[in-house]
Amino acid sequence: MIAVDWGTSSARAYRLAPDGAVLARREGAGGILRVPEGGFPAALTEMVGDWLADGETRVLLAGMVGSRQGWQEAPYLACPAGLDALAGAVVPVPFPGAAVRLVPGLSATDAAGTPEVMRGEEVQVVGTLARPDEDALLCLPGSHAKWVRVAGGRIAGFSTHMTGEAFAALKDHTILGRMMTGPAEVGPAFAAGVARSAEGGGLLHHLFGTRTLGLFGRLAPEDAASYLSGLLIGHEVAAALEGAAMAGPALVRLVGSGPLMALYGRAIALKGGEAVPGDPDAAARGLALIGERIQWA
Amino acid sequence: MIAVDWGTSSARAYRLAPDGAVLARREGAGGILRVPEGGFPAALTEMVGDWLADGETRVLLAGMVGSRQGWQEAPYLACPAGLDALAGAVVPVPFPGAAVRLVPGLSATDAAGTPEVMRGEEVQVVGTLARPDEDALLCLPGSHAKWVRVAGGRIAGFSTHMTGEAFAALKDHTILGRMMTGPAEVGPAFAAGVARSAEGGGLLHHLFGTRTLGLFGRLAPEDAASYLSGLLIGHEVAAALEGAAMAGPALVRLVGSGPLMALYGRAIALKGGEAVPGDPDAAARGLALIGERIQWA
Repeated sequence: MIAVDWGTSSARAYRLAPDGAVLARREGAGGILRVPEGGFPAALTEMVGDWLADGETRVLLAGMVGSRQGWQEAPYLACPAGLDALAGAVVPVPFPGAAVRLVPGLSATDAAGTPEVMRGEEVQVVGTLARPDEDALLCLPGSHAKWVRVAGGRIAGFSTHMTGEAFAALKDHTILGRMMTGPAEVGPAFAAGVARSAEGGGLLHHLFGTRTLGLFGRLAPEDAASYLSGLLIGHEVAAALEGAAMAGPALVRLVGSGPLMALYGRAIALKGGEAVPGDPDAAARGLALIGERIQWA
Repeated sequence: MIAVDWGTSSARAYRLAPDGAVLARREGAGGILRVPEGGFPAALTEMVGDWLADGETRVLLAGMVGSRQGWQEAPYLACPAGLDALAGAVVPVPFPGAAVRLVPGLSATDAAGTPEVMRGEEVQVVGTLARPDEDALLCLPGSHAKWVRVAGGRIAGFSTHMTGEAFAALKDHTILGRMMTGPAEVGPAFAAGVARSAEGGGLLHHLFGTRTLGLFGRLAPEDAASYLSGLLIGHEVAAALEGAAMAGPALVRLVGSGPLMALYGRAIALKGGEAVPGDPDAAARGLALIGERIQWA
């Protein structure tokens, strides 16, 4: 089977063995925003045409490729939903010589009734679980970070935090960025930001401290981005752990890869939780598990 | 006396009677960022030269004009500080034919030891108090909104919230702004944002709801900016009122003018407090009160 995690700005394709093992992987030329109208069959052929020519006949796609701006819309499936529900709701799209299916995204509402949506993260989540009936709390860092509750192997609900995009907007478009010279890194300044997030005053007040600490020489320019990142991720982690209300120290499965993993792992530990790094190929594993359950014929 | 509230991007000059009454007022050509190096005497003459020619000999300046980027630096005075302390700490600057003094800004630390500074707001605060020995909580909305505690007529401490600048950065430089068509206004969408700020999940999660409510048709494009404003101001007001820990319903004196006054007044009321609108000429009144206490000779 061929599995593609096809998002807004990037695409990752996997060739999978019948047991789900990754035989080959590659980055596609770009996300759905680069595909012209009607161009998805050609874009898929460009990405994995050689694998298809080599005999693959099943293609499973997840991510924004199933959105209104993608190949075809795969309507959101309401939570709770697990592997069987996802497999039962895939949407076929016409493609010569192969069966191509889109995995739907998920919708949910938070405790107060505000809607939530995801597209693509659901395959990473099901691909991260250690057992098919697991209870778990997962965190997917990113521009729009997601915290996902899994109960009995099914995604029960989730909440999105605009932490990454807020960090970029505050760093690049407010007075805070003027004194920043380095990237956000795990270290004392990041830990100080996380510690600050536990104090009174609120996030909007804490943000301004990034500036005043700098003015008073207590935060070096090369540390300011780390401090700001610690503030924001610290506020997010505190709210998410409080919302999860787990008994005992929270165990959080991190999903994804890259520098954010270390920042989130450190923040979760500083907040008294325990972070478990996830498999970078979680999307491939999740797509394989869904693929096994699809009625392809 | 001539009083000038001279900030980063604007200047307001007042001609005051001996009893503090405003005889005349005018907007200056611009804030300190428009004044070239060494150009402050000329800029002052351009602004109020006719009043000086008409016999005024005392000029009191407040705001960023006393910062390192201004005419001359007037070092921060540490809180607590009231009228007498401010009057005793003014800094003279050389100017032919008149006595010109700079009012210093104030510094403070919040409960956790993070530094705070203000320049210009202190004259508005002392100009807003109804009695010289008043206890009060004041709110000065703006890009960097300030909440100020006054005890016995002296400014005891304050905290800054980056609410206005964060609103602008989120509106103009994140996905949230794409679906916004109108300004932030008092109304049901603003009240919904304020109500949302009281729910769990944290500000970074609440921000994302601006998008999902829009996607699901539950927030109209023309209401989205009001909702976002309600979220941010709601979080700020809640944190500030909690920090003030007043017995009974909080009475908040609002300082300033313009559309933000209505938004803050509504948010404070929705949070169970009571907002009292301030005098738009608070800066002139504060400068008059400080001027009375200065040893000019």
